[in-house]
Amino acid sequence: MEKTLPFTKEQLEAWRDRYPTPFYVYDEAGIRACVERVRRAFAWCPGYREYFAVKATPTPAILRLLASLGCGCDCASETELLMAERCGITGDRVFFSANQTSPREYAMAHALGGVINLDDVCEIPKMEAGCGVPETVCCRYNPGKFAIGNDIIGTLGESKFGMPKDQLFAALKELKEKGARRFGVHAMLASCSLDAAYYPLLARELFSLALEIRETLGITLDFIDLSGGVGIPYRPEQEPVDILAVGEAVHKVYDELMTANGMAPALYTEMGRFITGPYGYLVASVTGEKRTYKHYVGLDATAANLMRPAMYGAYHHIIVPGKEALPKTDRADVVGSLCENNDKFAVDRMLPETEAGDLVVICDAGAHGHAMGYNYNGRLRSAELLLHPDGEVTLIRRAQTVADYFATLDVDEAFAKAGQKA
Amino acid sequence: MEKTLPFTKEQLEAWRDRYPTPFYVYDEAGIRACVERVRRAFAWCPGYREYFAVKATPTPAILRLLASLGCGCDCASETELLMAERCGITGDRVFFSANQTSPREYAMAHALGGVINLDDVCEIPKMEAGCGVPETVCCRYNPGKFAIGNDIIGTLGESKFGMPKDQLFAALKELKEKGARRFGVHAMLASCSLDAAYYPLLARELFSLALEIRETLGITLDFIDLSGGVGIPYRPEQEPVDILAVGEAVHKVYDELMTANGMAPALYTEMGRFITGPYGYLVASVTGEKRTYKHYVGLDATAANLMRPAMYGAYHHIIVPGKEALPKTDRADVVGSLCENNDKFAVDRMLPETEAGDLVVICDAGAHGHAMGYNYNGRLRSAELLLHPDGEVTLIRRAQTVADYFATLDVDEAFAKAGQKA
Repeated sequence: MEKTLPFTKEQLEAWRDRYPTPFYVYDEAGIRACVERVRRAFAWCPGYREYFAVKATPTPAILRLLASLGCGCDCASETELLMAERCGITGDRVFFSANQTSPREYAMAHALGGVINLDDVCEIPKMEAGCGVPETVCCRYNPGKFAIGNDIIGTLGESKFGMPKDQLFAALKELKEKGARRFGVHAMLASCSLDAAYYPLLARELFSLALEIRETLGITLDFIDLSGGVGIPYRPEQEPVDILAVGEAVHKVYDELMTANGMAPALYTEMGRFITGPYGYLVASVTGEKRTYKHYVGLDATAANLMRPAMYGAYHHIIVPGKEALPKTDRADVVGSLCENNDKFAVDRMLPETEAGDLVVICDAGAHGHAMGYNYNGRLRSAELLLHPDGEVTLIRRAQTVADYFATLDVDEAFAKAGQKA
Repeated sequence: MEKTLPFTKEQLEAWRDRYPTPFYVYDEAGIRACVERVRRAFAWCPGYREYFAVKATPTPAILRLLASLGCGCDCASETELLMAERCGITGDRVFFSANQTSPREYAMAHALGGVINLDDVCEIPKMEAGCGVPETVCCRYNPGKFAIGNDIIGTLGESKFGMPKDQLFAALKELKEKGARRFGVHAMLASCSLDAAYYPLLARELFSLALEIRETLGITLDFIDLSGGVGIPYRPEQEPVDILAVGEAVHKVYDELMTANGMAPALYTEMGRFITGPYGYLVASVTGEKRTYKHYVGLDATAANLMRPAMYGAYHHIIVPGKEALPKTDRADVVGSLCENNDKFAVDRMLPETEAGDLVVICDAGAHGHAMGYNYNGRLRSAELLLHPDGEVTLIRRAQTVADYFATLDVDEAFAKAGQKA
C-alpha cells in the first residue's frame, strides 16, 4: 500500500521552526481511527479490552489519549506502572506482564489494583513476598511450538517467556489453593505477524487450553489475553492486517469452542505496535551527501533516535515531503552521524534526489521507536509532538538537553552544576 | 586466558549494600597498567599520543584519569566535546572525528583548539561555515579493501566512514590551497581485531599513502592516526594482543617507510576498547531461575545496562564470585527482565549452580557498555564505581532515578513536577 503522510511539507517546515529536527510526530486522528477499528473488531466480545503495551510508546499524552478511547495499559516495570498511575490509569485497567520480576514490582502492580500476569511458576514465591496471592491472576503460556513462525521471537522453545502446559497447570492449581478466585491465561506466540490467521490460531490454542483447564483443574477462566503480535506493513508492498476480519475469525472460534461449551471469557489484547506504529513519524533534515564506494544521504537523526534498523535490520519507509512525485533515481544508504556503521536508516534505498536541508520522514516509527532511543556518542533524544485532528501540534515530550545528559554526573564535582552551566 | 577479578566477593557485597545492583565497576589499576603498556609500546615514536575514544566510556572520572596518564580525547559530538572541556582536556589533546557533522560542531571543536578529522571531501564547506579552514587538519581514509576482515565494520566498501584515495587527495589539495599548514591522515579498517598484524599492516598502508601524498601533492604529513580497532579477548580461550610486540612491529614499518624516506610523522592511536574494555565489570544479582524448554538464570540487569549481547550477539564472560572453583554443571541462558527476547547476556552458557541473591559479574563491559545503555521498558541506567588501587571505591556516576526518566516530560502538566513527586 502506497504510504502517504497526514501532514504537508509546509506544516513540517512550520514545526521545524519551533522544534529543531529530529523530532517525532504522532497522528492523533490515525491512532483514534485505529483504536476504533480494533474496538469494532472485538465489540462482539463482552468484557473485551485493549491493554496498550506501554513499552511501545511510553509517552503520557499518548497513554491518556488511548485511555480516553477505553484502552488500559500493559506495563512491565516500575516506571511503566508509575507512568500509568500518573496518567490516571489504575485498577483493572492496568495489566502487569513482566518477567524476572522483583517482589517490589509485584507490590506496586497490586497496590495500583492491576492484574498480574505471571511469567513462570517460579515467580509465585516472589509475588507472594510482594503482595500475597491476589484474587485475580493470569498465567503466561508458552506451548514451545506454534503454527506461525516469526523472526523476532524466534523458536518459541528458545523464548524466555511463559510456561509449558504442565507448569501452567501446576501454577493455576497452586494459585487456586492459595486463594486466587479469578483466572486468565496469556500468550504471545509471534511478533509483528501480518498473517491474518495469527490471532484466530492463537485463539484456538488458548480456547482449547481453557477447556482443558476447566476439565482438569475445575477452573473456568474469566479472561484470555491474546497479547500483541499483530504486525504492521513496514514495507509499501505489504498489506495491512484487516483487523475487522481478524475479529470476525476469532469470533467464530470463540463461538465454536467457548460459547458452545458454556464458557464466556473476556478477551484482552495488547496491540502496542498495531495501534501506534503506523501513526508515528521520525522527522529529520538532510545534512549532506557523500559519494564514496556508495552514495550516502546524511541525516541529523541517528540510531539514538530510532534503533530498529541498527538492532534488527528493520525496514522503515522513507518519504521526502514535496518530492513524492519525483522519480526515485537515487540509490543511497541513509545514515546518521554515529561512529557506528550500523547507524543506517536504510541501505541501498531508492529515493528522489535530495539536498542538504530537505526534510525526510521515516515512517512507521510510532512503536518501539523513541522508546528504544539511546545516548550513544552523546547524541540526545528527540522531542515528540502530537498532531491533533485540527492540524495543531502539541509538544508532548521535549528534546533532551546537555543538562539531561549530564544529570547522573552530579556526584562528580566538576559536573555537579552541569545543569546550570549547560 | 582464564579471567580473574580484581575484587573479592566480600568487596562486592559491601559495595552492594551502598549501591544496589546492577552497577558498573572500573578497575583503576588495570586501566593505569594498560595505558602504561600502550605508552611503552609507542615510546619510540616522537609525538606519539593516545586519544581515548570518549564514546567507549563517556564518564568524566575515567577521562580525567586517562588525561592524567597523558591521553587526549577522541570526540565525535557536541556533548563529547563539552565533556572533554569540562574535564580540562582542550587544545591539541582533543581530536574531533565525526561524520555527517554540523557547522556548529566544527565550530565547537575548533573553539576548543581540537584537531578536526574530516570524514569526507563534501564536509569541507560545512567545516568552513563552522570555523573556516584550520591550520591543522586531518582526513579520514577508506581504501575500500583491506587484508584483515572484521564482522562489525563489515566490508570497507560498505562502510560509511572515510574517503577513497582520489577524494582524500582532492581534499588535502583543497585544504592546502585554503590555508591549512599541518596535515594528518586517519583510518580505522577493522574493529576489535585480535590479529597482532592489524596495526602493522594498517601502518604500512598509511605510511605508503603518506609517501604518495608527499610525492603527488608536496604535502609532508605531520601525523598519522592509526585510530582504534585493536581488540580485546572477550572469550577466555582468546589471547590478548601483545601491544608491546605490536608497537615494535609498527616501529619496524615506520623505520622502513618513514625514517628511511626522511619522514617523521607523529603517530596517534584511539584505543578506546583496548584501554577500558577489560577493566569494566557489570555487577548484577541473580533474581531467580526458570526451567521451561531451557534453563534460565534471571538477573536484575538487562540489555538496558549492557546492550552488546542483544545488538551484536556479543560474548561476555560471566563469573559467579565465590563459586569460581565449583564445577560448571549448569547450562543456562542468562537473561534480563526486558519484554524483548534478545535480552539475554548469554545463551547456553555453562555456569556453576546459582541461586537468587548470588552476585554475578559480567566481564569486559568497560567499553561500549554503560555508554550504549537505553531505557527500554522504563528500565533505568546503572551507577558506575571506580575501584582505586587502595581498594576503595568512588561513585563516579549515580544510577538514574524515576525523576531522570520523567525529566523530558516536564512539558506535560501531569509530569511537570515529576522530580519532586518521584
